[in-house]
Amino acid sequence: MHEIFENIISNNINYTNHGKVATYIPELAKASVEDLGVYLITLDGDEYFAGDYNKKFTMQSISKVLTLMLSLMDNGESKVFERVGMEPTGDSFNSIVDLELKNIHKPFNPMINAGAIATTSLLAGNSPKEKTERILNLARKLSDNPSIKINEDVYLSEKMTGDRNRSIAYFMKSFNVIEGSVEDILDVYFKQCSIEVTCRDIANIGCVLANDGVSVRTGETIVPKHICRITKTIMSTCGLYDASGEFAVHIGIPAKSGVGGGIMAAVPRKMGIGVYGPALDEKGNSIAGIQILKELSEKLDLDIY
Amino acid sequence: MHEIFENIISNNINYTNHGKVATYIPELAKASVEDLGVYLITLDGDEYFAGDYNKKFTMQSISKVLTLMLSLMDNGESKVFERVGMEPTGDSFNSIVDLELKNIHKPFNPMINAGAIATTSLLAGNSPKEKTERILNLARKLSDNPSIKINEDVYLSEKMTGDRNRSIAYFMKSFNVIEGSVEDILDVYFKQCSIEVTCRDIANIGCVLANDGVSVRTGETIVPKHICRITKTIMSTCGLYDASGEFAVHIGIPAKSGVGGGIMAAVPRKMGIGVYGPALDEKGNSIAGIQILKELSEKLDLDIY
Amino acid sequence: MHEIFENIISNNINYTNHGKVATYIPELAKASVEDLGVYLITLDGDEYFAGDYNKKFTMQSISKVLTLMLSLMDNGESKVFERVGMEPTGDSFNSIVDLELKNIHKPFNPMINAGAIATTSLLAGNSPKEKTERILNLARKLSDNPSIKINEDVYLSEKMTGDRNRSIAYFMKSFNVIEGSVEDILDVYFKQCSIEVTCRDIANIGCVLANDGVSVRTGETIVPKHICRITKTIMSTCGLYDASGEFAVHIGIPAKSGVGGGIMAAVPRKMGIGVYGPALDEKGNSIAGIQILKELSEKLDLDIY
Amino acid sequence: MHEIFENIISNNINYTNHGKVATYIPELAKASVEDLGVYLITLDGDEYFAGDYNKKFTMQSISKVLTLMLSLMDNGESKVFERVGMEPTGDSFNSIVDLELKNIHKPFNPMINAGAIATTSLLAGNSPKEKTERILNLARKLSDNPSIKINEDVYLSEKMTGDRNRSIAYFMKSFNVIEGSVEDILDVYFKQCSIEVTCRDIANIGCVLANDGVSVRTGETIVPKHICRITKTIMSTCGLYDASGEFAVHIGIPAKSGVGGGIMAAVPRKMGIGVYGPALDEKGNSIAGIQILKELSEKLDLDIY
Repeated sequence: MHEIFENIISNNINYTNHGKVATYIPELAKASVEDLGVYLITLDGDEYFAGDYNKKFTMQSISKVLTLMLSLMDNGESKVFERVGMEPTGDSFNSIVDLELKNIHKPFNPMINAGAIATTSLLAGNSPKEKTERILNLARKLSDNPSIKINEDVYLSEKMTGDRNRSIAYFMKSFNVIEGSVEDILDVYFKQCSIEVTCRDIANIGCVLANDGVSVRTGETIVPKHICRITKTIMSTCGLYDASGEFAVHIGIPAKSGVGGGIMAAVPRKMGIGVYGPALDEKGNSIAGIQILKELSEKLDLDIY
Repeated sequence: MHEIFENIISNNINYTNHGKVATYIPELAKASVEDLGVYLITLDGDEYFAGDYNKKFTMQSISKVLTLMLSLMDNGESKVFERVGMEPTGDSFNSIVDLELKNIHKPFNPMINAGAIATTSLLAGNSPKEKTERILNLARKLSDNPSIKINEDVYLSEKMTGDRNRSIAYFMKSFNVIEGSVEDILDVYFKQCSIEVTCRDIANIGCVLANDGVSVRTGETIVPKHICRITKTIMSTCGLYDASGEFAVHIGIPAKSGVGGGIMAAVPRKMGIGVYGPALDEKGNSIAGIQILKELSEKLDLDIY
Repeated sequence: MHEIFENIISNNINYTNHGKVATYIPELAKASVEDLGVYLITLDGDEYFAGDYNKKFTMQSISKVLTLMLSLMDNGESKVFERVGMEPTGDSFNSIVDLELKNIHKPFNPMINAGAIATTSLLAGNSPKEKTERILNLARKLSDNPSIKINEDVYLSEKMTGDRNRSIAYFMKSFNVIEGSVEDILDVYFKQCSIEVTCRDIANIGCVLANDGVSVRTGETIVPKHICRITKTIMSTCGLYDASGEFAVHIGIPAKSGVGGGIMAAVPRKMGIGVYGPALDEKGNSIAGIQILKELSEKLDLDIY
Repeated sequence: MHEIFENIISNNINYTNHGKVATYIPELAKASVEDLGVYLITLDGDEYFAGDYNKKFTMQSISKVLTLMLSLMDNGESKVFERVGMEPTGDSFNSIVDLELKNIHKPFNPMINAGAIATTSLLAGNSPKEKTERILNLARKLSDNPSIKINEDVYLSEKMTGDRNRSIAYFMKSFNVIEGSVEDILDVYFKQCSIEVTCRDIANIGCVLANDGVSVRTGETIVPKHICRITKTIMSTCGLYDASGEFAVHIGIPAKSGVGGGIMAAVPRKMGIGVYGPALDEKGNSIAGIQILKELSEKLDLDIY
């Protein structure tokens, strides 16, 4: 294992040349395109890391995993899946088409923006602030890092440029898929996307998921097992936008990516992995991050299929 | 002609039984389903009327004609049609699908909601209030009725229930098809939809269009001829939602309908006609109003094709 | 008028530089990109012509007008429009999407391929040969040219490359929109597209349509008036593929184009016009042909709106 | 285990009341709606069965798994996935929309009809007969049953009613996704759908997949390991039509269903399972068969996530 981690950055750093940093949220464009880091935590508590594992980045879509879990804990499975489906879709993360065409009007799954906005809208809490605080607390517990907080600049940048998400949210509101103030719901949504983490933080989150919700360190059950199972399954089928199928075929690990450059992976009953590389491929996934996970999956035989 | 108008209501009143008053805007649901009126004004200044020609109703989509003309007068043809197309579409008035699928992101034409929101966004004026005032003034001039005003209850009802339009507007904003505050643009849009008129008012508007922009009474050019031509053409191909083709085949007159129950028709070089009947067919057009126009088109040989 | 026709080719020939000859049917690629001709016949029997008015080209989609009329004469309005709609659509001529998405499965209108295949399927006749002969006979009568025939090379080229049309036809067959042998129906369809004409031929066809179905020369009613009206209306809303709206706005004449480079125009109660220019714009319409019609419409005030 | 199998039919038989036998292929409508059977084979060679495990049914879409594997063995991964994607889609199995809208024109994945027709088109063999024979041979080897053959009545019924598949195939041919004779390709496709099997046969197929391509009985490698992995992954994300996501969430086993009523499941490194119950749910999956797999997954802890 140590040998693998010695070379894993140099083996994959060249892929960063073929990717591009996200620019549609201006604040994200400031990331260094050649950054690359990885952190792996086994269920036995062993930790391995390399490269820019200590750099901070925002969760972006990785936060959809947290909102799904919290929403399921708050509302139960049946209420959540009345509002959001669990089917993968070939459409891109910010598509609104399916909402209109399918005559169902509920989002395909909680990993596309529409679905995540819907799960966010269901969170318990009396105010956007309280709801955000509850997500943050879950993030802190799962990552074993009480200092996790929101990157305010990214949050404001998201809010400024979030018209496509407003469009999606108002569309759902017009069909009663979501209720209440759209701006309030989106405020929570933009904030959760802006939660700042490192590779270690998301490796820890993956580790709890891999361990069916139980903290490796404390033995505490943070998330019920059946909710972890649902979450890992949806990560497997929908976690990498419209490249989820290809990722499943070639790597075969439940994972969730974000346009901030992170990928959080949970290898059932084995380990959690966090990678960071803000150079993205065309589908919005970390281009070198995927290659690191591919190397790990092959060398450690992690493919679940 | 007098003979025609004597029987035209009784000939067509039964069609109202097969229609339904619009309910998606609560205030509209208060209309009387059996109301039916018609007003016809020739370019010679002759006027004929029957039924509930004096009842008030809100313009709704008929106002799209005014916004198109005003926007063309304010910005010129090329600037307007950079933002809005002029192609008919088989999709319904509040569809958002085409905006995403066609990779153009500009609305198909100014008679669907997306297109009308875009032309509204282009209106000259320093505030929503000023823009609304300018539309109202055009409405008053075209209808030769200085007392025309907005129905505040309907306006508030539209604003309350306008989430689908918000979705459409934010979608366009995310692609820079519209600029500025979405709520400000929609405020103007909801107000223009809520302009209150009678059959005579819209017959007068049709009359000016039929006369290529010149007031029959005063001889004043209210709208330039080429803008009237564009407007009548787009009414012909897109004026009755996704029943525009059928209306053209069976009746063959440039016309624009609204879910308030009105239809404004402009027979080129001949006359303007206003009908009112809030019982709508499935496509959102006045079910008996269409039949009245059919009878008039056949008996007076008004088909332009 | 003579003055107009003296310069009309030189005024518009440069537009051919901006277009391209159709290549998806290999035989069509042999046309000369700089060809340009025009023929105008008034209801008084006056004839004006210029340029390559005598060159032969295949009707292609212009034949859809003939099939629509013949199908209406064979089956009546209600039976035809049970199978084909009369609504314009923003989608391109060979789209299959609407057939699936709209849950209606009947083609939008008879001017797109799906619609024309459906009207063709309804033609009377015991064999593909007999049906083709009936279309040819109508073409000969309308164009006052008994020597009109099919270009066999183009027909075979269409048949060879017609898989998209086969796809459309089998789709409709699976929903019982068309019945019988798909290859038989398409054989007639490919043949009607391959009918060879000149500008004069299609000007004559337009002239009969302009005159509500009555031959200017013989006084014979070739097509009933109400069928001519329907046909001209559908030409107005759907005749130039997904540029029909723009053509209506800028030129305002019922017309039908074909990828062979022809445009047949029928100015109600005034004249028929045929233009030919195989250099096509992006939408598949004769790029210089449209400009010739624009010049004629403006100079002769032909706009019907 | 024996205890489980004693009650598994009676526990789930009532679900058959809520499903319907497929009728769009007339021959399939003859199945007995209350049939229900299951067969389980562990990698240790233990076999368990219950109910109508011995009844014959046709593979239908289960055959898509065989064609995918054979096509990959014949052509290699890169050539196959040039023509077919590996992304799940929310659209139904016989949709053609995505082919047009996405501007890619290659089918989303090999488990929808379009994708399976494409993999079939790539099979080695000089004639439809030879290709069919090669699929049959693979089926016989995988199922350890040399007597497997095609149900001719079902095949003819498929061929008769296969116009939607013809439409899909011609669409792909027009974009060169498939090459050669459409009828020849579909002949192989209809035949592979009509391969007749029992629960035991498909349990054996699942067992080989679960064992990464190696026959439990003979130790022979029938399919290379990496092809088995790809296949199981695509079964996991796309195996149950547009209910694949829900099946993954609730059951979590790589599986492929067919409208004949069968479901073939491969539990990696553990076992193969075949179920049969021709009463289908709305998505086209065996309604009681899914419940049997759910019970087995829960009681034997088979969920891979």
